[in-house]
Amino acid sequence: MSKPANTDHDIHDVLSARWSPYGFSDRAVDKAVLSSLFEAARWAASSFNEQPWRFLVATRDEPEEFARMLSCLTDGNQEWAKHVPVLILTVASTKFERNDKPNGSAWHDVGLASASLAFEATARGLSLHWMGGIHRERIRSEYRLPEGFEPVTAIAIGYAEKIEAVPEPFRKRDRSPRTRRPIEEFVFSGAFGKPAAITGG
Amino acid sequence: MSKPANTDHDIHDVLSARWSPYGFSDRAVDKAVLSSLFEAARWAASSFNEQPWRFLVATRDEPEEFARMLSCLTDGNQEWAKHVPVLILTVASTKFERNDKPNGSAWHDVGLASASLAFEATARGLSLHWMGGIHRERIRSEYRLPEGFEPVTAIAIGYAEKIEAVPEPFRKRDRSPRTRRPIEEFVFSGAFGKPAAITGG
Repeated sequence: MSKPANTDHDIHDVLSARWSPYGFSDRAVDKAVLSSLFEAARWAASSFNEQPWRFLVATRDEPEEFARMLSCLTDGNQEWAKHVPVLILTVASTKFERNDKPNGSAWHDVGLASASLAFEATARGLSLHWMGGIHRERIRSEYRLPEGFEPVTAIAIGYAEKIEAVPEPFRKRDRSPRTRRPIEEFVFSGAFGKPAAITGG
Repeated sequence: MSKPANTDHDIHDVLSARWSPYGFSDRAVDKAVLSSLFEAARWAASSFNEQPWRFLVATRDEPEEFARMLSCLTDGNQEWAKHVPVLILTVASTKFERNDKPNGSAWHDVGLASASLAFEATARGLSLHWMGGIHRERIRSEYRLPEGFEPVTAIAIGYAEKIEAVPEPFRKRDRSPRTRRPIEEFVFSGAFGKPAAITGG
């Protein structure tokens, strides 16, 4: 299934193609493809080139590791994510390595790296679904996160399932339209809340 | 000038092409192109589809607004950013609209949207340079940020200058090689710090 964004302005195909399905097929993801996804994340920008992103990965061909990572998701997420071929946990390094001071950009920069990973995945016909619903303390203990590192999100990666094969209630969610606020509600000029001229505001 | 990433695994051209120059040419950015950059940001993923990103934009053809935004950057950033055609400030909405509770993903999701904007820009031959060196209190007062909104980064956008035309010390910076830690140092499996098999670790 695909669900391209209904855009008001022209954007790159890879960006309009990206969406977050609940229904994933059984098809595995090649290891070489996974390497390219992390390579994409690797070259993201970051504050002082700190690269504060870390990833924990589990694939379904290692059932024990997969079950362990699945157990770090909320029940609602486990219900559909148990079918995906690849799970990832993203982790932020919240202190600068060079001076041990707090890195206020860490979560933001994990977002930059994760988005790069998502573009690479989408360009290769894969789909992903970010999850904020994770058990952070469980992740800390299961994976022995050192002090200074924080769990950020989980990401499911795989190939989107044909809509007819997706069980309810997920089929209904996958069929629901994609919605976003219009540009004039988030692009401002001169003062916060004042639509920028380029938005037609 | 271009400076493609020296990758260990194949990644999409737009991702390897993205880098952060200091030298930008005088060439303006079309308004229609700017609209597409924000449209790209618009369709990013976010926790509960909250879309916690806001953007303030200033172009050099509005000198007063441009000077105001430039004044929100640290001196070191002003020195080179005064030459760029477009400046953006990114802002995070840190509370969920539906229940006023803290949105822990806000900064992360601003990263996702900013990365989409960057991908669209790079695909169109533009370059960008994120800045963490900004005067946050000044941004709050200049743009009258309401409570619950936080300045995140600034972004310079334009066309990279020919390296011979970039003045020192920025020419030297633009010439320096791009470096990143290898995948086995940030992609783990089973425990934090244990390289994942796909990394060759």
